[in-house]
Amino acid sequence: MNETPESKGEPLGLIVETESGPGVLHQLSGVIARMGGNITWVVILGSEDRRESVFFEIEELDSLGPIIDELLALPIVFGVSEETTLKRVFGKRVIIMGGGAQVGQVAVGAVAEADRHNLRGERISVDTIPLVGEDALAEAVLAASRLPRARALVLAGAIMGGEIENAVRTVRKRGLIVVSLNMAGSVPEAADLVVTDPIQAGVMAVMAIAETATFRVDKLKKTKY
Amino acid sequence: MNETPESKGEPLGLIVETESGPGVLHQLSGVIARMGGNITWVVILGSEDRRESVFFEIEELDSLGPIIDELLALPIVFGVSEETTLKRVFGKRVIIMGGGAQVGQVAVGAVAEADRHNLRGERISVDTIPLVGEDALAEAVLAASRLPRARALVLAGAIMGGEIENAVRTVRKRGLIVVSLNMAGSVPEAADLVVTDPIQAGVMAVMAIAETATFRVDKLKKTKY
Repeated sequence: MNETPESKGEPLGLIVETESGPGVLHQLSGVIARMGGNITWVVILGSEDRRESVFFEIEELDSLGPIIDELLALPIVFGVSEETTLKRVFGKRVIIMGGGAQVGQVAVGAVAEADRHNLRGERISVDTIPLVGEDALAEAVLAASRLPRARALVLAGAIMGGEIENAVRTVRKRGLIVVSLNMAGSVPEAADLVVTDPIQAGVMAVMAIAETATFRVDKLKKTKY
Repeated sequence: MNETPESKGEPLGLIVETESGPGVLHQLSGVIARMGGNITWVVILGSEDRRESVFFEIEELDSLGPIIDELLALPIVFGVSEETTLKRVFGKRVIIMGGGAQVGQVAVGAVAEADRHNLRGERISVDTIPLVGEDALAEAVLAASRLPRARALVLAGAIMGGEIENAVRTVRKRGLIVVSLNMAGSVPEAADLVVTDPIQAGVMAVMAIAETATFRVDKLKKTKY
């Protein structure tokens, strides 16, 4: 029926069409919890009139069959369907932020390198946000660690410091790898890796998170290129 | 205390540190529902040992105060903090997919154009996934319509058709604007807009979703450039 589900390790995807409004998620998650499923991601997709679609990624289950039957028995549920999980489709993410000119060049390097790994079975996507200003960037750096599947962050600009430096130190503690272009300001000092050429910065960020590469940032003898 | 929350229209962000495991989301969402909050996004952030952090975006509330008190009263909850919402930080998304060489060039155009609009108050991010093969691409196109905040999709390749064409027609019905490079195969026929130059394709995709642009795809007299 569906090629994806294999084991208890792999998340399963489910779309539920329901009535909209407060309390809906509580009812749906109650069914999933009772059947032993652990919800690892939820998104409320578009809603029309009084209907909405909710997408769940669920772990620790062998099959969605019993949950689907229980959900269909709820009066608020109109329909349920299995769906491929976003993790399987879009995989790990590299996030690039900073000024447009430099973000674009880092993206060229990162996309070309991700292409090479994705051809060998990886799923790496490259996401960007062109943004300037200390406060806006510091906020975006902190929020990047809240993005699902985010693994590495590249800061692409000509000068970054102050609150952005603090944000970099915080997200590194949360597990993000941070690559900085060689630039003015204190951000390069706070990063895992500093790279002068934007194309190479994108390539190295992807290599750092690819299982198909032997490159590991924490094994490098030098951290400035 | 927090600059973001203004009105019932704006979503509010909340991070809850809890014990991990099945049933946690059910308990948390129960509190939010009882207080009248409508959850529009949830993500389970990293978990360590038996603890995890859950991020919620909640609408239809004036303040998070009462919900925070109720959540802190749950035995499974260790801590609660207000947080900026991802929607406010990362805004609308353009998704670019296809072969690495072309995806990179479309990204250069899209990032440069998004930069110009973001300087005037927009928040547009540009996301890419380099990916080849009819099945993989068709699956990714369909899944793109499930990504939060996705508004436009650019297909960047040299030949795309078959199942990808069907997927394009499906996601257009779900509200995504689809831009295709001028290429072999049937995808260009199914797209909203066909553009030959990859830089321009990226620029036009961003213009199509920017409030700060007067460009509207459905008002164009010509749909092939």
